[in-house]
Amino acid sequence: MQLGKLIGPELKALLRDDPDQVRPLLEELHAEDFADIVAELTDEEAAALFGRLPAAEAAAIFERLDDERQADLVEALGPTTTAQIAMEMSSDERADLFKELPDDIGDRVLASLEKLDPEVAEDVERLARWPEHSAGSLMTTDIVRVAPDMTVADAIVAIRAKGAEAETIYYVYVLWPDARLHGVVSLRDLLLAEPGQRLTDEITRNVITVPPELDQEEVARKLAKYDLSAIPVVDARGVLLGVITVDDIIDVLTQEQTEDVQKLAAVEPLDLPYFATTFWTFVRKRAPWLIILFVEEFFTGNALRHYDQVLQAVGKLAYYIPLLISTGGNSGSQSASLVIRGLAVGEIKWEHWWKVALREVGQGLILGVILAAVGMGRVLMWGDGGRFMIVIGVTLVGIVLMGCVVGAMLPLALRRLGFDPATSSTPFIASLVDVVGIVIYFNVAKLVLADVIAGAATAAHALPVH
Amino acid sequence: MQLGKLIGPELKALLRDDPDQVRPLLEELHAEDFADIVAELTDEEAAALFGRLPAAEAAAIFERLDDERQADLVEALGPTTTAQIAMEMSSDERADLFKELPDDIGDRVLASLEKLDPEVAEDVERLARWPEHSAGSLMTTDIVRVAPDMTVADAIVAIRAKGAEAETIYYVYVLWPDARLHGVVSLRDLLLAEPGQRLTDEITRNVITVPPELDQEEVARKLAKYDLSAIPVVDARGVLLGVITVDDIIDVLTQEQTEDVQKLAAVEPLDLPYFATTFWTFVRKRAPWLIILFVEEFFTGNALRHYDQVLQAVGKLAYYIPLLISTGGNSGSQSASLVIRGLAVGEIKWEHWWKVALREVGQGLILGVILAAVGMGRVLMWGDGGRFMIVIGVTLVGIVLMGCVVGAMLPLALRRLGFDPATSSTPFIASLVDVVGIVIYFNVAKLVLADVIAGAATAAHALPVH
Repeated sequence: MQLGKLIGPELKALLRDDPDQVRPLLEELHAEDFADIVAELTDEEAAALFGRLPAAEAAAIFERLDDERQADLVEALGPTTTAQIAMEMSSDERADLFKELPDDIGDRVLASLEKLDPEVAEDVERLARWPEHSAGSLMTTDIVRVAPDMTVADAIVAIRAKGAEAETIYYVYVLWPDARLHGVVSLRDLLLAEPGQRLTDEITRNVITVPPELDQEEVARKLAKYDLSAIPVVDARGVLLGVITVDDIIDVLTQEQTEDVQKLAAVEPLDLPYFATTFWTFVRKRAPWLIILFVEEFFTGNALRHYDQVLQAVGKLAYYIPLLISTGGNSGSQSASLVIRGLAVGEIKWEHWWKVALREVGQGLILGVILAAVGMGRVLMWGDGGRFMIVIGVTLVGIVLMGCVVGAMLPLALRRLGFDPATSSTPFIASLVDVVGIVIYFNVAKLVLADVIAGAATAAHALPVH
Repeated sequence: MQLGKLIGPELKALLRDDPDQVRPLLEELHAEDFADIVAELTDEEAAALFGRLPAAEAAAIFERLDDERQADLVEALGPTTTAQIAMEMSSDERADLFKELPDDIGDRVLASLEKLDPEVAEDVERLARWPEHSAGSLMTTDIVRVAPDMTVADAIVAIRAKGAEAETIYYVYVLWPDARLHGVVSLRDLLLAEPGQRLTDEITRNVITVPPELDQEEVARKLAKYDLSAIPVVDARGVLLGVITVDDIIDVLTQEQTEDVQKLAAVEPLDLPYFATTFWTFVRKRAPWLIILFVEEFFTGNALRHYDQVLQAVGKLAYYIPLLISTGGNSGSQSASLVIRGLAVGEIKWEHWWKVALREVGQGLILGVILAAVGMGRVLMWGDGGRFMIVIGVTLVGIVLMGCVVGAMLPLALRRLGFDPATSSTPFIASLVDVVGIVIYFNVAKLVLADVIAGAATAAHALPVH
């Protein structure tokens, strides 16, 4: 961004005055930094720039732009130039581009691509079929395929032949019989082996693979667990469909994390970066959950109306309501976040629910007692009297305990029922805890202050109704 | 875990009855799965198992165990066996192990290591010096170093010589003069080049590097941006200290995400997995923030006492308090999470504060109006009258607007002041918004219901004091 702002204007002037100077000037830049600069140009300026670059260089920059920017640029570039650039893109990025394009434009670019290389066009159609967030949508088909009867030297020749376009050359994939994945050989093992040796001895048979339908989050977890730099995607018959490389998994981790943070705060995942998201998209992603939580919170009104008599009798009970219910919500959020994260990284499983429940009961009691001590001190300072201290103390233990247990159990229950435990759990728990918290509070008050409430009721009856 | 539970008991029986059978049985397993099984064994059983394995195999499994489990096992293994295993560990994992060990045990293992190889012992001491979460603490020194006047064939010989122990062979690092990083050559380029060619033409000079003090989150962002599989760590003089590989970055991303989720829910980061965290650690990580938020929420009590007269005059105002303030909190959480995440991934910068503020004012108004419509409908259904509808409607617009603006601006201000914006922002904002929400509510009520309140005050004065 910064670099783009600095170089952007000078680049524009150069493009206008002496376009041939652009390429050597930018040769020293990383494709990612170049992409940052292109992000600051208009579609027409960017298209003019891409027109001056060889397709391979253009592709390296183009595939690093945002998906939507890519789609916008395709119109400025036209189908022929786009197809030339697409030819040089990696197969997974290329398929993603076609997913972003409106159908009519996509069809025209695909037609141009078909003229250049029918196989590439077919590859696009095959890859673009996999749904978003699936392993299939992340995989590349630019890999080195070898046969088990090759020698080490043959395999290195295969790598050299495919090397420039392959997305990973650090593993070669041994197919046998037909297109079935027989095993893998790492480039490391190839380099350490004797050139004349048969591949057979170097093949790792016990390969970690994923099915194409697997969710990207699961793929990321598997790749992370086994410290892999690439993971093959294999269908039910054992046929190798493609490979997912670690750089795509890093993007997945960041994307999933963003979604989780948004879901935890009751925002529907945004898909786009903050400033790329339009005003109305924000409203659409935020309003539904705000309304649901708002309606859920109506029950606090019902609960308070239910305890109307108690509230009338002891007016100062009202002063403590926000303090008490927010504390329940805070302890519930803590527990919920710990459990949700534990579920996400696989540390906690549904079967552990009773272990989690036991821990939360214990923590809830201790934390409740600590807060009760602080709260009772505050009652003393506000001068609301000894019996009020008991009401607040007992209520706090009850509310914090309840907050912890509800906060921890609800995400587990959601997961068990097949829902995503992250989705708006913490605000949902907060509203739930608010209602139950009010019930606890007023029942404790009714018990401890029974005579005061009864006295007030008698006094009220004695007064004339106005 | 599952596998460990299944194979664990059989493995124990085998270890007891026919220990020599263990190795061939487990040869087919991935080191990670083997580590899962070891996690289920007692320290003594695990030590017996490691004793039966060659040091290299033991090291591959050992370095995949939790840091604390490693430290526990060192006692069972004794300094000599530990040193033998440590010799075969990757340099970054080895340094991490020594950081975990109690000083006296660490010194004894280091003494044994010094006897085996003084250079390795020195490497441990050098690496263990870097603070946690720094680039230095993540780097490995097991890399392939070459000189710029070598040929491509020489470089491949260097890779083959170092290949088995190097953590990455996908880049070779060109040092010149002395230990300064001159550039890198990728193994891909080496394979595609002619063997007799000088390295000079293949060297990438414009290398993305990080200083050893850089925070691991920044390292991860840089590596992700440039799609690197390894990033060199270089000191101020340009000397190459080591390399951080992508597998460590994946662990960093997961760890940082866990911390962010915990911080957002006002829990101090736990360091350990959920079930590895002790009961009292949980209490220590949760209690301080709960207390701080609880004390902060005292102000809601003060605010309510301040508006005592209004509350006395119009009792039903109390019924809406939880509904209104929780809605402020929810909209504040939404805005805060969006901004915190935007800051974390670098989409939002401090300089953008006014753009963010403008968006949030707009969104706050729209969302406020939507919720006001719903809320006014509810007032109607509860039968609290037309003027009460106005109070609730106006208050909701004010509270949601305020929640959005405070929620978005506070994380930006925290970042600007050098604090971590994630730390407990959302509950902190919720309590802040609670207090301001009460002020807005009662002032709107005072304005709209001025005559009712005045009338009630007169009536109260007219009554005899009881």
